[in-house]
Amino acid sequence: MGEFGLIGRVTAGRKQPPTTLIGPGDDAALVAAADARVVASTDVLVEGVHFRLDWSTPEHVGRKAIAVNMADIAAMGAVPTALLVGLACPKTTRAEVAEALAAGMWEEATRAGAGLVGGDVVTASEIVISVTALGDLQGREPVTRGGAMPGDVVAVAGRLGWSAAGLAVLGRGFRSPVQVVGAYRVPEPPYEAGPQAALAGATAMIDISDGLLADLGHICEESTVAIDVRTDLLEVPQRLVDVSTALGADPVHWVLTGGEDHALAATFPDAAAIPAGWRAIGSVTRGTLVTVDGGKYEGGAGWQHFR
Amino acid sequence: MGEFGLIGRVTAGRKQPPTTLIGPGDDAALVAAADARVVASTDVLVEGVHFRLDWSTPEHVGRKAIAVNMADIAAMGAVPTALLVGLACPKTTRAEVAEALAAGMWEEATRAGAGLVGGDVVTASEIVISVTALGDLQGREPVTRGGAMPGDVVAVAGRLGWSAAGLAVLGRGFRSPVQVVGAYRVPEPPYEAGPQAALAGATAMIDISDGLLADLGHICEESTVAIDVRTDLLEVPQRLVDVSTALGADPVHWVLTGGEDHALAATFPDAAAIPAGWRAIGSVTRGTLVTVDGGKYEGGAGWQHFR
Repeated sequence: MGEFGLIGRVTAGRKQPPTTLIGPGDDAALVAAADARVVASTDVLVEGVHFRLDWSTPEHVGRKAIAVNMADIAAMGAVPTALLVGLACPKTTRAEVAEALAAGMWEEATRAGAGLVGGDVVTASEIVISVTALGDLQGREPVTRGGAMPGDVVAVAGRLGWSAAGLAVLGRGFRSPVQVVGAYRVPEPPYEAGPQAALAGATAMIDISDGLLADLGHICEESTVAIDVRTDLLEVPQRLVDVSTALGADPVHWVLTGGEDHALAATFPDAAAIPAGWRAIGSVTRGTLVTVDGGKYEGGAGWQHFR
Repeated sequence: MGEFGLIGRVTAGRKQPPTTLIGPGDDAALVAAADARVVASTDVLVEGVHFRLDWSTPEHVGRKAIAVNMADIAAMGAVPTALLVGLACPKTTRAEVAEALAAGMWEEATRAGAGLVGGDVVTASEIVISVTALGDLQGREPVTRGGAMPGDVVAVAGRLGWSAAGLAVLGRGFRSPVQVVGAYRVPEPPYEAGPQAALAGATAMIDISDGLLADLGHICEESTVAIDVRTDLLEVPQRLVDVSTALGADPVHWVLTGGEDHALAATFPDAAAIPAGWRAIGSVTRGTLVTVDGGKYEGGAGWQHFR
């Protein structure tokens, strides 16, 4: 089908955002970078490791591949502007599947105002999707993982534990409730919350892909601080409680350790700085570890993909 | 080994170029884009399709993966600034192989002054390397495939047919002559020739990845012109003549149709505009087809990877 075949067919006739100066079809794309700096991140999704086409439609997978990358852009305080896609597919992949993947990608990119500006399509023995997202800081300073200070307040934006609940449901062979299964299939990163946090003076920020505790651990490492999460501040939605009851699981564990929701966690100088859409969940102290209610979390922090 | 494990290990202690504002290790990289626009291109290489580890070392493959992408940046008239790598590897891949791949990537990036700024490493059933290259136009207008005009002169920079000769040699079970085999393993795109052509007023430009005739065909399509290549202007190096004689092949065929050398082809308003390092090989006329010495090329234009 070829590089221009697929990307061209999916993007043909669609309206690229104003940041797309040259879109698919030439040797390279040209994207506006008004800030004179560009934020860039790459993630790879592999069939059977990061997604299963019996659990998700190709549209879901396409949306997810784009969402996980744009969440990284938001986690720097930037706005996603453009996406490039490397798609490896078996020869046996039906054109409709590849087109549905690309259509999902386009849909998610458009949700955030970014353009699908280029890519490459090649033959491989399984589906491997590599996405690179570009973003614009719009004059703001980037928010790294390294700026948290003792005394800061820790806050999150977006859903926590929903994708883990959805994965648990699918793993038991169920297909509902649709809200949690949908959250597993397509994360809904709060793209706008990243720039908002940057504007509000966030001192550190990270995309929660591996689970709240694991990713707060990266902030601790890079900032040389400790973080304590208070479970009384955690939002545990009734929906997660219901699902956990049915499965005999612990919803707080999902919230603390579940990956792939692509919520954002950030640290702010004080509670008053926390912008709308963010909720405080803990505090930054001296030390190096992530604790829960002042102690080591005994539930096990690891998050594993299903293979 | 993880994302930061590999990319971090390979880039640790190395000197990033000044354009790398934030390198590997955070949610995303931050790259200078002084021009307020960024050129971006993605290519994917698959083991068994685009490379074989019995024909190339992992360092060769790493260099090639970066080179093919940076050639696309050069073909827009831009200078490569940064690279992001998505690397999928079987669990059985030895750490040394992955590190050698990454070391080759770093080496080639450094040759062109670009930084290896980020990436992702995941598990898959075969090696899939997805590279995204970013570049800076430095105030120049991009040179697309679409600006060639009847009366323009067609010129090329870089090697033609060398990679095809190397592939033919390897396909026969030989490992020498080392110059052509080396050209297959690691293309040497003339990175500086792209910006030079842009400065000299090139009206269209393309990276020759599929073969001279095939890629000139893309210029014809996008510019709505015809191009005639004159074989008396083609440089057929003695080395290619020697190898072709030994293999019973046609060296001119390699020059006209061989892929993967990643030379550049461009069109210029007149012969006087052609910068040093470029050589005229034909002319742009009215029409839509690529011809050789005024006629259809009967040798077959297609270039195939070895699978």
